[in-house]
Amino acid sequence: MQGEIITIGNELTSGRALDLNAWYVAEKLASHGVPVTRITTVGDDPIRVSRAIKDAMGESDFVVVTGGLGSTDDDITNQIVAEALQRPLLLHREKFEQIKKHVEANGLRMSPSFEKMAWMPKDSQVFNPKEEMCGFSLVEGKVALYFLPGVPEQMRHLMDTYVLPEILSQYASQPVTRQRILKIYGLSEPEISEHLKNLSKTHPDLILGFYPHYPENHVSVSMNGKDLQTVAEEVERLEKEIRAALGQYIFGSDDDTLPGVAGKLLKEKGLTLSVAESCTGGLIGNLVTNVAGSSSYFMGGMVTYSNQAKIDMLQVDPQILADHGAVSEPTVRRMAEGVRAAFKSDLGLAVTGIAGPEGGSREKPVGTVHIGLASASGTFSQKYLFKGRRKQIKMNSAMMALDWARRFLCGYPFIPGL
Amino acid sequence: MQGEIITIGNELTSGRALDLNAWYVAEKLASHGVPVTRITTVGDDPIRVSRAIKDAMGESDFVVVTGGLGSTDDDITNQIVAEALQRPLLLHREKFEQIKKHVEANGLRMSPSFEKMAWMPKDSQVFNPKEEMCGFSLVEGKVALYFLPGVPEQMRHLMDTYVLPEILSQYASQPVTRQRILKIYGLSEPEISEHLKNLSKTHPDLILGFYPHYPENHVSVSMNGKDLQTVAEEVERLEKEIRAALGQYIFGSDDDTLPGVAGKLLKEKGLTLSVAESCTGGLIGNLVTNVAGSSSYFMGGMVTYSNQAKIDMLQVDPQILADHGAVSEPTVRRMAEGVRAAFKSDLGLAVTGIAGPEGGSREKPVGTVHIGLASASGTFSQKYLFKGRRKQIKMNSAMMALDWARRFLCGYPFIPGL
Repeated sequence: MQGEIITIGNELTSGRALDLNAWYVAEKLASHGVPVTRITTVGDDPIRVSRAIKDAMGESDFVVVTGGLGSTDDDITNQIVAEALQRPLLLHREKFEQIKKHVEANGLRMSPSFEKMAWMPKDSQVFNPKEEMCGFSLVEGKVALYFLPGVPEQMRHLMDTYVLPEILSQYASQPVTRQRILKIYGLSEPEISEHLKNLSKTHPDLILGFYPHYPENHVSVSMNGKDLQTVAEEVERLEKEIRAALGQYIFGSDDDTLPGVAGKLLKEKGLTLSVAESCTGGLIGNLVTNVAGSSSYFMGGMVTYSNQAKIDMLQVDPQILADHGAVSEPTVRRMAEGVRAAFKSDLGLAVTGIAGPEGGSREKPVGTVHIGLASASGTFSQKYLFKGRRKQIKMNSAMMALDWARRFLCGYPFIPGL
Repeated sequence: MQGEIITIGNELTSGRALDLNAWYVAEKLASHGVPVTRITTVGDDPIRVSRAIKDAMGESDFVVVTGGLGSTDDDITNQIVAEALQRPLLLHREKFEQIKKHVEANGLRMSPSFEKMAWMPKDSQVFNPKEEMCGFSLVEGKVALYFLPGVPEQMRHLMDTYVLPEILSQYASQPVTRQRILKIYGLSEPEISEHLKNLSKTHPDLILGFYPHYPENHVSVSMNGKDLQTVAEEVERLEKEIRAALGQYIFGSDDDTLPGVAGKLLKEKGLTLSVAESCTGGLIGNLVTNVAGSSSYFMGGMVTYSNQAKIDMLQVDPQILADHGAVSEPTVRRMAEGVRAAFKSDLGLAVTGIAGPEGGSREKPVGTVHIGLASASGTFSQKYLFKGRRKQIKMNSAMMALDWARRFLCGYPFIPGL
């Protein structure tokens, strides 16, 4: 069984909006072992929408279509489907009443624009006639067609509640699926390939995937099969081999995030963290506090963008700044020690660097970043040279700092530069 | 003239990665008046890739293809194109040397995986043989095909530097196009519709678009035509009407960002900023410092996640915390004043709130956020209730704080809650 996704909207073909719907539907299906073979995006153009639907029906067991179900003039999916499949449009009474109620509750009057939302191609199944959103399915020949709204919240609700369960229930000889994503930071794609070149890939159905996910890299091990035990054992075996090959570069798996893993380690060990940020400007603190519950281990941070702030708030010796500059190993060490003292935390992380595009020199080019970690067992520091633009340099600096915390808490030896 | 986009990668059809490349290419083309009629995404499957390319060639003047140019086994675009167009693969000497140099500089050995990246379909034009990325174009019949890497940074660089200028130069009878995007923060979609319902839309070719861009909303005015003066005048006229209707809710246009606009105002007025963050955890500082050159007005910030940090570093009176709590109007006012004093900045922005999912109460539910602004002309504060999940509440808190700075610097009166 395999399917396609069609997303409709001028905002997508004009790049005004990111296609979050295709992404969501594809992920839901793939993570349940249902392959998506193609995603097609077209504008609000009857001919192109009609052709996209017919093309997809020729090759798939099901098609999920999003967009074009609303009340504006360019919402024309119902009519297009009716014409394409040569089915008359019929008024769905229950849906009509719900729409009317909703429209009037908002102080508006029922009009043809709203009414058209209740006209469905013959033999459509409306998912939720009583809810304030539109969505329906129909079967044409052997192909199931699912039509969902373009509004992401509504689309996700209907996808999760109606479409996914129905597709999975059709999966008669549903194979067993196992997938494991291993998440890597600090190795480039060629370096990972090199480390993984000797994997024994004994089972022909085992699939190894590589997904850059800037600034991380993800390796996926997956397998479909009939026998749960074989599938689980094979995936586990290959995961072990990859873990042995990549070691401490793997920071987590599946839904893990680097700030989440570092936070979990801090929590487990009962330790606290504070951060002193210069070129990252608050990004490390932001990533750390994206994790729910981070207040139990994150004491806070200082963004010391100016030299004076480094002196006043982190007690960096002015002589060190004069002798070595703000972007230097002695400075980052004092920053880490200063923030650890100020917040009385167990660990103090510090970053100082040149994010660019201005401010670089021959000696200290854009991308030069020093990372420091102060702890009860001493202070560590290292210089990196990150590539990319301002935001990328900031992101790599923040991620490397968090990876230092992770590796320190795991007891791993530190790794020299990227 | 019209084109299509094809993006290749199992990470896209499986929803493991968002299709940022299609989005970027579509936006670049559309904003230059070149319509994209379809975006097709397929996995790393030779048959599907081949068919997608052939389908697109049948209907378009050009096709931009991204992905499949790297060194891993599933990077097979060159071979597929050669087969689909029945052209032999030829070794590109200059590219080969560049790849070899790069591979060896990374301590690796040249291997067939790397070498294949230098084998191109006959009569391909390699964009930048000396740079460390792959990309090429070729012409088949009347259709121009552009092949770009899947790595977003490389893709964007090649798109901007080579592909877009070439496509625009082909646009012989190029119509005049004008587009203006107006960016709004602090109004919901229905509120904007209500404000804009009385626009006079005199010219039939004038297009008004609405694009939610969380947490912002964007309104686009665009027009294609033959006569530059008419097009420019019409777009300008409608822009003025929209500006009159939405007033201070419009923070910028086109490529503006809210932190960029606030930063520009600070620079123009020769003022400096510092931030005290609690629930945003560093996000405001991160957004401010994403703007190149922000060091000239951003003094720094404090992330005071704990009560003790608010007392120690921002001189918030412990009695205020005891009487009103950390999430309160008196606290946020003292935080703003405290950070302004600590960094000796002209403006001090502060945020304290409950980002959730835990920590809410009946009196102070998740999403309760106080924003404060301290200045030479006094301290201002207000309570908001933001909806959404943790990251959305953080983002809205940070954006609202930055919008306060913008509105203060513009001399606008403050707006009551969202």
